[in-house]
Amino acid sequence: MSNLGYITDEKWGLKEESFNSKWLRKYESIMSQGNGYFGLRASTEEAYVSEKRGMFLAGLFNKFDDNEVSELVNLPDMIEVHININGETLDLNKGQTKNYQRELDLKTGELLRVFEWIYKELHVKFEFKRIVSFDLKHILAQQIRIENLGQQSFELEIISGINGQITNTGTQHLSEGPKQMIEGKVLQMTSETTSSQQTLVQSTVHQFDKNGEAYDPKARVEMERRKIQNKYWMALAATEYLTIEKISAVHSTRDFDSVGVRSIHERALADLKEASALGYEKLKNQSIEAWNNKVWNNTPITIKSVDPLDQLAVIFAQYHMHVMTPGHDSRMNIGAKGLSGEGYKGHTFWDTEIFLLPYFTFSHPEIARSLIEYRHNSIEGARQKAKKNGYEGAQYPWESAWITDGETTPDFIGTDIVTGKPMKVLTGYDEIHITGDVAYGLKQYIDVTNDKQLLSDFGFEIIVETAIFWSSRLEWNNTLNRYEINDVIGPDEYTEHANNNAYTNYIAFWNMQLALKVIENIESYDEQVIQKIEALYDLKRLRDDFTSKLSKIFLQQPNSAGIIPQDDDFFEKEVIDITKYKKAENVGTIFHDYNMSQVSDLQVLKQADVMLLIYLFENEFSNDIKMDNFHYYETITTHDSSLSLSTHSSLAADLDEMKLSYELFKKATEIDMGQQMSSSDEGIHAASLGGIWQTVVYGYGGVRNLEGTLRIEPKLPDNWEQLQFSIYWQGCKLTISVTNDGFEVINHDANKEIQYLHNGEYFTV
Amino acid sequence: MSNLGYITDEKWGLKEESFNSKWLRKYESIMSQGNGYFGLRASTEEAYVSEKRGMFLAGLFNKFDDNEVSELVNLPDMIEVHININGETLDLNKGQTKNYQRELDLKTGELLRVFEWIYKELHVKFEFKRIVSFDLKHILAQQIRIENLGQQSFELEIISGINGQITNTGTQHLSEGPKQMIEGKVLQMTSETTSSQQTLVQSTVHQFDKNGEAYDPKARVEMERRKIQNKYWMALAATEYLTIEKISAVHSTRDFDSVGVRSIHERALADLKEASALGYEKLKNQSIEAWNNKVWNNTPITIKSVDPLDQLAVIFAQYHMHVMTPGHDSRMNIGAKGLSGEGYKGHTFWDTEIFLLPYFTFSHPEIARSLIEYRHNSIEGARQKAKKNGYEGAQYPWESAWITDGETTPDFIGTDIVTGKPMKVLTGYDEIHITGDVAYGLKQYIDVTNDKQLLSDFGFEIIVETAIFWSSRLEWNNTLNRYEINDVIGPDEYTEHANNNAYTNYIAFWNMQLALKVIENIESYDEQVIQKIEALYDLKRLRDDFTSKLSKIFLQQPNSAGIIPQDDDFFEKEVIDITKYKKAENVGTIFHDYNMSQVSDLQVLKQADVMLLIYLFENEFSNDIKMDNFHYYETITTHDSSLSLSTHSSLAADLDEMKLSYELFKKATEIDMGQQMSSSDEGIHAASLGGIWQTVVYGYGGVRNLEGTLRIEPKLPDNWEQLQFSIYWQGCKLTISVTNDGFEVINHDANKEIQYLHNGEYFTV
Repeated sequence: MSNLGYITDEKWGLKEESFNSKWLRKYESIMSQGNGYFGLRASTEEAYVSEKRGMFLAGLFNKFDDNEVSELVNLPDMIEVHININGETLDLNKGQTKNYQRELDLKTGELLRVFEWIYKELHVKFEFKRIVSFDLKHILAQQIRIENLGQQSFELEIISGINGQITNTGTQHLSEGPKQMIEGKVLQMTSETTSSQQTLVQSTVHQFDKNGEAYDPKARVEMERRKIQNKYWMALAATEYLTIEKISAVHSTRDFDSVGVRSIHERALADLKEASALGYEKLKNQSIEAWNNKVWNNTPITIKSVDPLDQLAVIFAQYHMHVMTPGHDSRMNIGAKGLSGEGYKGHTFWDTEIFLLPYFTFSHPEIARSLIEYRHNSIEGARQKAKKNGYEGAQYPWESAWITDGETTPDFIGTDIVTGKPMKVLTGYDEIHITGDVAYGLKQYIDVTNDKQLLSDFGFEIIVETAIFWSSRLEWNNTLNRYEINDVIGPDEYTEHANNNAYTNYIAFWNMQLALKVIENIESYDEQVIQKIEALYDLKRLRDDFTSKLSKIFLQQPNSAGIIPQDDDFFEKEVIDITKYKKAENVGTIFHDYNMSQVSDLQVLKQADVMLLIYLFENEFSNDIKMDNFHYYETITTHDSSLSLSTHSSLAADLDEMKLSYELFKKATEIDMGQQMSSSDEGIHAASLGGIWQTVVYGYGGVRNLEGTLRIEPKLPDNWEQLQFSIYWQGCKLTISVTNDGFEVINHDANKEIQYLHNGEYFTV
Repeated sequence: MSNLGYITDEKWGLKEESFNSKWLRKYESIMSQGNGYFGLRASTEEAYVSEKRGMFLAGLFNKFDDNEVSELVNLPDMIEVHININGETLDLNKGQTKNYQRELDLKTGELLRVFEWIYKELHVKFEFKRIVSFDLKHILAQQIRIENLGQQSFELEIISGINGQITNTGTQHLSEGPKQMIEGKVLQMTSETTSSQQTLVQSTVHQFDKNGEAYDPKARVEMERRKIQNKYWMALAATEYLTIEKISAVHSTRDFDSVGVRSIHERALADLKEASALGYEKLKNQSIEAWNNKVWNNTPITIKSVDPLDQLAVIFAQYHMHVMTPGHDSRMNIGAKGLSGEGYKGHTFWDTEIFLLPYFTFSHPEIARSLIEYRHNSIEGARQKAKKNGYEGAQYPWESAWITDGETTPDFIGTDIVTGKPMKVLTGYDEIHITGDVAYGLKQYIDVTNDKQLLSDFGFEIIVETAIFWSSRLEWNNTLNRYEINDVIGPDEYTEHANNNAYTNYIAFWNMQLALKVIENIESYDEQVIQKIEALYDLKRLRDDFTSKLSKIFLQQPNSAGIIPQDDDFFEKEVIDITKYKKAENVGTIFHDYNMSQVSDLQVLKQADVMLLIYLFENEFSNDIKMDNFHYYETITTHDSSLSLSTHSSLAADLDEMKLSYELFKKATEIDMGQQMSSSDEGIHAASLGGIWQTVVYGYGGVRNLEGTLRIEPKLPDNWEQLQFSIYWQGCKLTISVTNDGFEVINHDANKEIQYLHNGEYFTV
């Protein structure tokens, strides 16, 4: 029995209803906080063996040694607070815990934990509050209240500061720098990443209050290796209470504004002083205001459903998408686990363009633009990857970290337990569709925002160079007189060494076609831009090359039953009944019965592949084809990837399969928010959150960008009474309200008309 | 109230009488096991927040970055075993623990832990046994017995293997290498130190037994980053019991025998197979036999005292001295915390020569020789240190690690909390007496063993080059027409920047005098050796230099009251009453009232200084001088160093102050074995253990080497009825039995007579 509950009344949030140390990691991830600048796992103040502390600064990557790849550094911990009462350390595995409640309020971003601890002669009430400021990006604030409910006075000892003994699962990325106490109060620790040579400055200050009045307890600084802490001690009589505010700041040389003006240490101290002068309550209120302005009052999504968890799921998705996304800095992107854990080393995958970008493109175009610009900032790595593999143009890394890191997929992972040899990771070599996905995300952004400036700023380069890559990647089949793309991994990673994967070939085709269009449209740019572009590329040669190849690229076609084969050999593979794997509590249970190479020889999918093709290019396929393929592939897809369910769910809605769609939607929402208590240990599933938004807005809101045309075709699941959401379309904010009786579109911009397509007709608002 | 108890009946050992997680670190140190090749802290199989796991391979040093110094690497953990019953992790902070007992048997080296755990519906009896083989140096063996005392069957899950997520307080010294399962059973992990480039291979295998019969549970290998484990699961019905034997091996390229013959991996596998074929019981019995042969039956020490802890203390000292001492390899020496913790980074100090070497010189001359040879193997670092400081000859590092590391005292430690600047560590520069201490230890070894071969092998080089250092270090005072040694730290580290520290000047004088003697005696060596020496040194010049300087070296003389000043300014400093600091439970409490610079201006000593001078050179001082100085300095010495009490205790015995001597002895034995539950957290106090032996054998046994003459002047404390011990003197084993009625010396060598001095008369046995 899990202890995870939900708050859907007045507030929206998650709650932990009783303490159980074995599920701490789940809560650390799903209740993680952040502001896109840094992320913080929801570890408790007191330590437990089963915890996995984590704090991550977007963009702060480091490579430990030549055997490892760049990864997001797990920072020195700032939230740990040791509390000893009469010499006994607070530990909820000891004694009795009463009235326990932990809550993350998704709208305010505040994490709250309240309980009474009864141990030996002690009876103490604790209240822990915590925010990561959504307003002041460097600031983290904690408030702790300790009340003596017992009959006798006790001795209270509080040890708190900054603990740099944290590692990334044993790998230490930081060299220890100076630690100091400033002005008798502020603790400051400086560290430096061992190879990327970034300086990290962490600062913290404590403020006390006893029975409501400012208080200055006895204190002593304690320094250990990689640790600076203050120890405070005092007596707390019966009925007395103590409040501690711990305000902390994190700064690094990765900050855009770290150079010039003032040194990073001065800036850190100034920011911390400013924040601590405000105090916890004011910091919290400012942060809530920022959340409201940016998210909740800007692009709110309202769902009236029989099941309030539907509303909660989309709030949960929006919350985490903002917590994890470094929209402030285009040298950074979103990690597969956001900033909520060490999983996937903070690396960026195709998850951004295909799953997360739509939310930002439709809701926060400025963030979307920054995420796309990241691909331009990191294009040199893509060029290097193409070159290394013997191709031309830009081949985007499967895994991407800091902009200059290039491909960061590990070459090897683990070791084959039988041979003892390291196991090669193929995705970095073979999962090449990401290059097309990058172009796809960019094109969709331009369609939706009409931000043509992006094309001449840097978009042209991305589109053309990705197309150049594809052109060089094509393999001429002389027998069949066609271009093929062989030996790849498509979106379905259970099929390795696929030839002519339907999705991959199509996105390559589309990417080259897009490049051809932008080249043909070059005259619309400023003269200066044209000159710049013409200096870089031989446009005529490219146009000729793309034109001649496009018509000969092999694209998988439906068979006699109307089913598009996932790849050349797919239909030759055995079909098995995968019902039990689909029903299993954990993903990947098929590997209890088969090994990878056996799975590769079955018609079993990890995740949407042909389905994704149909989803992304809906105008290319007839409804019959969609329907037939949907049923064929849904049956053989395990959805072992967190990226899969939302695609199938949205498609099902497109196909009016509302019951199935809703079932898949529910499953998608359960990936992180559900009762499976270990699947989120290494962090939340970023892409799946984007997928939830897509099912709501694309699937049920029926919104779609059809190459620059806004389509709205809403259809609500049976459980839903109403859906209301806002999107930005070509600069205008639209609010779309859907009920079972129909829908309404409000254009908030009085000065501009917006056209949309519905049931084949155009409407204007 | 501590939970530390003592076993002094039939067996000799330490026991923990109840479980309290806050004192785990004390037990990890004092119950640590080892065999000189590697050391293992006594961490529990299940993990606790307050633990500090540690396993250390002698000589396996690494330097993390340029800000840090070489330190002994804390190795991947091999003793952790996760035990989950019906999904609940064994954790003694949860539920109820009954019949708890943990014991370290010092004679057998076996660590035993037994208890019943009652939690929810579970009632389970656990028995954990563990040895580090004293016979097979690479081998560690564990035996775990789990018995279901409850009414119902339960599901048991055991996860055990090798965990490389361990760090040295946050610093990771190892690059992750391949992990593999071999022959379906053995788990093996390879790591490499990041800068010293040593390969470490750890291997482990599990064997099961259910209700007394061989058993093969369901199993699966689980690999994480820096971790390889096997997961086993099974049901255990009421009254059933399971026995697990986990046999582990550790090998590294530091091993002398790692080169040639077979690769380290093959050797590791072969050693592990051999050991696991024997099984826990046989391995234990072999190990006990090795302990008996080498230590307990060889040089036993028997004390009949009113307080059995006196006997226990000397067994504890002998046990740990053998556990920590890498006598098998002269490229290694003893760390200040042995192999029992991260404290002092595994570095070797003067502790070896002045405090620990006497035990080995008198009991295990072959180990003593190896420890001395280490100083020759590392002499290049001493030469470099002298050169760097502008001197000649060999200036031994204050802290020493691997033979090629040279001085490894950190330049800076922590940060001045006020200025924020790193604090300079002065000992590496100013505590220069170690160079004389090295020569002293060597000379004593030759006197006691008559191993003159060592002189021509390498001893000559050490003695002459240390003297050359002193000669170059002397400062001529033109006004006073004498050589001085200014701005040093003597043994008393509470006095910095001392001029003409009595101990330092004397040991320099003595060192040069010794060099003069060995030079003058050069003709006794083989012709070949003489040629080699004469090629290295201009002996005539050295002889002239030493001769001319020796007579002019200033040595502190007693003042009118007969007190030898510790240094030039010592008597000008204020005297304060330090009774409260001497009585305090913790050391260093004087710093609650004074800072270091203030303490430096007081007549307050951390540890024996002039006392040590008198102790080491007893023939140089009259009894009156000894007595007067003893009382003067004992009053003002805090004994804040663990190196101090035994010296004062032995001296007190020399001076017939038996009551005070015994009090000091008791305090010395309490440094690790006492009820103070945090002072040993970072490891046992190696030197203090040598000091305990010295008080027993030197102080009460009255044994002393007076430049090659054996003096025996026993005197027992009031509490003692009998003392019996064995020593080696010039190749003969002597057993000395002391009672209040007199003493007896037995020479075990029928072919050789030994002369000793007693009450001014010579006797022969």
